[in-house]
Amino acid sequence: MRDFSSSHEWLSINTATVRKQWRLDRIIDECARRGIRAISPWRDQVAAVGLEAIGQQLRAAGVGLSGYCRGGFYPAADAAGLAAALADNRRAVDEAAALGAPCLVLVVGSLPGALEGRPAHRDLARVRAEVRDGIAATLEYARAAKLPLAIEPLHPMQAAERACVNTLEQALDLCDALDPQRTGALGVAVDLYHVWWDPKLAAQIARAGRERLLAFHVCDWLVPTRDLLNDRGMMGDGVIELRRARSWMEQAGYRGFAEVEIFSEHWWSRPGEEVLDTCIARHRSVV
Amino acid sequence: MRDFSSSHEWLSINTATVRKQWRLDRIIDECARRGIRAISPWRDQVAAVGLEAIGQQLRAAGVGLSGYCRGGFYPAADAAGLAAALADNRRAVDEAAALGAPCLVLVVGSLPGALEGRPAHRDLARVRAEVRDGIAATLEYARAAKLPLAIEPLHPMQAAERACVNTLEQALDLCDALDPQRTGALGVAVDLYHVWWDPKLAAQIARAGRERLLAFHVCDWLVPTRDLLNDRGMMGDGVIELRRARSWMEQAGYRGFAEVEIFSEHWWSRPGEEVLDTCIARHRSVV
Repeated sequence: MRDFSSSHEWLSINTATVRKQWRLDRIIDECARRGIRAISPWRDQVAAVGLEAIGQQLRAAGVGLSGYCRGGFYPAADAAGLAAALADNRRAVDEAAALGAPCLVLVVGSLPGALEGRPAHRDLARVRAEVRDGIAATLEYARAAKLPLAIEPLHPMQAAERACVNTLEQALDLCDALDPQRTGALGVAVDLYHVWWDPKLAAQIARAGRERLLAFHVCDWLVPTRDLLNDRGMMGDGVIELRRARSWMEQAGYRGFAEVEIFSEHWWSRPGEEVLDTCIARHRSVV
Repeated sequence: MRDFSSSHEWLSINTATVRKQWRLDRIIDECARRGIRAISPWRDQVAAVGLEAIGQQLRAAGVGLSGYCRGGFYPAADAAGLAAALADNRRAVDEAAALGAPCLVLVVGSLPGALEGRPAHRDLARVRAEVRDGIAATLEYARAAKLPLAIEPLHPMQAAERACVNTLEQALDLCDALDPQRTGALGVAVDLYHVWWDPKLAAQIARAGRERLLAFHVCDWLVPTRDLLNDRGMMGDGVIELRRARSWMEQAGYRGFAEVEIFSEHWWSRPGEEVLDTCIARHRSVV
């Protein structure tokens, strides 16, 4: 297992972590200044500055990507909505490829309208089928762009609104169905916040193997957790066995970044410099 | 599939649903008055009135039990704590048997101290082993009392504090390990609030079969859900496909009660009569 205690060369920052403090150009500067070698930016943050400008800045700063957030949200109430989602995912693939991302992270979506509190229907089997078909279509486009897709299972508490793929096993079953040859074009993003509780986590990480393990996200599960979306903890402040889980990832062949992704009203209220410095310190001490 | 639309003979009320409005003796009266044939009471509610008095009242009113809440909470930080949990579970078995309950529901527990916000450790494998050993010990005692134990998988968002058994598959794996002969002494409580999201739900209900399906709890998953514990919805107000899930239960051989269990600040703030009447109406219209 790689030793993270004396270096943060394998630390990446998901830029949502400091999205309320800074624009993306400032985030890249602050990361580069601290020797953080990679980020995972969100599409809206890129768009707010401009795709081309961000690409140039990343290259000049020597900062790479550990992923690009995000594609997905395939289900829709009608055919026009389904087609619009596919078109949007093609644009996301193009942007990820333009920025040199190693993968596009897919938050697959679930009941249409649920995010706005007005679900159009409650048919989970239907949205799971739409997700499967949507990933299949995007995969064809992404293969041509040589851009791997990483399905991210989300915590079951987000099953209605954000993702009807809720376990690593389910994500890997999709991978096996759509990419049985394990070409590297389709895999998973393992975010410990979403999967730490799963009794099959170790076994499914082993099943995934190097070809399918495209991203690894860390933060922590707070006790108590006060909000279903924006109460993620800093590594070390909660109950996730981060180092044990990373050892499973490495045993399975993963050698990429540990990407810190924290949605938290608490950390969004702190100075961005403090957040990044804390990420570095905790990456070394507990990840 | 049984038709619930014109009768509520298979409705049971988990007494937590109106615990803030009434003491248990009043709850029993109000249920009997409405032709509700069964309840599932909590130990503290029974103790507040007295075990013997409640037993007499239930028999006089002709109200039965669909379960008894609850045993479990096995993990502890030390040997004394583990032993205390076993002793407490023996008392729970005795009480359930005295009341003629068809099963004792087990909320198995998880990281010791987590419920108080101070987890003693973060070792999920350890608490899962303690849960297995605890159920094995209680099972021996419960077999002698002819009192079936129902393992209730809780939603993964409660994995740190309340239960480290979080899927039906995991609960059934425990059943198969501890009661491989399927004697009826050990099974599961399927609470749709906790398992509705599971892509393997239908398959695992079928796997469970009649011998393992000891209880069936209903309420609804609200969109958005604002609290991880006390924001359950009334049937029909959320996104759970209640009737589809009940059809899976019945195909697997289940013929028992549909027990309404709602922890909700909203419903606790309404008059108890309104809550019970709404439970009856929704049981008929959407369960």
